[in-house]
Amino acid sequence: MARGDAFDVVGFDADDTLWRSEDDFLAAEAMFAELVGPYAPDGIDVLDALHAIERDNVAVSGYGVKAFALSMIQAAVTATRGAVPSAVIGRLVDHAHDMLMQPVELLDGVPETLAAVGRTHRLVLITKGDLVHQLRKVRTSGLEHHFEHIEVVLEKDVATYRSILREWQIDPARFVFVGNSVRSDVLPVVELGGAGLHVEYHVTWEHEVVDDHDGGFVELGSITDVPGWLAGS
Amino acid sequence: MARGDAFDVVGFDADDTLWRSEDDFLAAEAMFAELVGPYAPDGIDVLDALHAIERDNVAVSGYGVKAFALSMIQAAVTATRGAVPSAVIGRLVDHAHDMLMQPVELLDGVPETLAAVGRTHRLVLITKGDLVHQLRKVRTSGLEHHFEHIEVVLEKDVATYRSILREWQIDPARFVFVGNSVRSDVLPVVELGGAGLHVEYHVTWEHEVVDDHDGGFVELGSITDVPGWLAGS
Repeated sequence: MARGDAFDVVGFDADDTLWRSEDDFLAAEAMFAELVGPYAPDGIDVLDALHAIERDNVAVSGYGVKAFALSMIQAAVTATRGAVPSAVIGRLVDHAHDMLMQPVELLDGVPETLAAVGRTHRLVLITKGDLVHQLRKVRTSGLEHHFEHIEVVLEKDVATYRSILREWQIDPARFVFVGNSVRSDVLPVVELGGAGLHVEYHVTWEHEVVDDHDGGFVELGSITDVPGWLAGS
Repeated sequence: MARGDAFDVVGFDADDTLWRSEDDFLAAEAMFAELVGPYAPDGIDVLDALHAIERDNVAVSGYGVKAFALSMIQAAVTATRGAVPSAVIGRLVDHAHDMLMQPVELLDGVPETLAAVGRTHRLVLITKGDLVHQLRKVRTSGLEHHFEHIEVVLEKDVATYRSILREWQIDPARFVFVGNSVRSDVLPVVELGGAGLHVEYHVTWEHEVVDDHDGGFVELGSITDVPGWLAGS
């Protein structure tokens, strides 16, 4: 009996699992530091200020590009004591809009993997972040047709997965979730009795497959290993 | 036989149907005009500029406070050719965060109406806008327990209602939707074969009940008229 026979539905995370995302935020931070840094007094680390403001704001404004942009603007004003010219702030806003419109860059092997897994299992997508941006990425990626359900959520915790799986009438014990975050994609699903497959974002970094002791939490080197894992025993 | 016997589920819009929302955007626009206007050259209408930028951005950044805030900041920079001080922009960002955290102000009679309708029908909530903000308002309003399902969507059009009702296994012919927007809350639901109840936002403005010719689109003077409409024949 194949391992996959124990599961009805395979769920996927999106950012940094199906397509690149974090790289764009790092590039935006570098631009922020370059544009805003010169206006900050000596001894102010503008990136530290940005990160602290982001952490403070996440409960209010959530995850995603728009929340990040508002934090960048707030940090630009406060870290420079208002010395940053508003033209610089205009560039930060323009950059955020560019991020929202940027073409999706799929990670290697993603379409083939979804097609292969879709031949044996029903697929769903659960992702955190900005509603309009995430749905735009799903639509423009050309991957939308693979998924029976797509949900953008605020937090990927046990309560969220429980409520979504109940709504979709999916038995958590027959559910596998694939994603790049141990905290958001793997542990909550395992706690609910499902299986979690962790795929490191830097796909070239690690190619070995290591089962951990809990039995539900599996390390895969690449998303392209998912069909093989399901076919294995 | 009561009219309500023809329906299984009653859906509600949220902003300006259950709680005040538009007023806050109008207040923010007034603040924007007051703070930014003095830095614009003669002959520039900063509110016109803001509205045009908002319309341009909606496909990219969606509805809601964060998208509105980014449009305000963009308009402040472009309409003043960069002359607006960044401290003013800092105040716009702070105001947007205040809007996200502002206590929910329920419209008159909402809790009683949901309790009354909930005794005879299953309730759902479908709202457009910012995910984190809308879910925060639902949670902090104390109304969440009334709803079997809650969905935040990008657009309230026929395709969206069709897909949500299918997902929730609700027969559109046995579905009523209540909201303040004819375009988003009433017409798409009527087109799917359900009933739409339009409740004008200015609740004191019009209290008469007028059935329109289509039979599905009904004008109510207040949300508190919903239980009576369902009980009528």
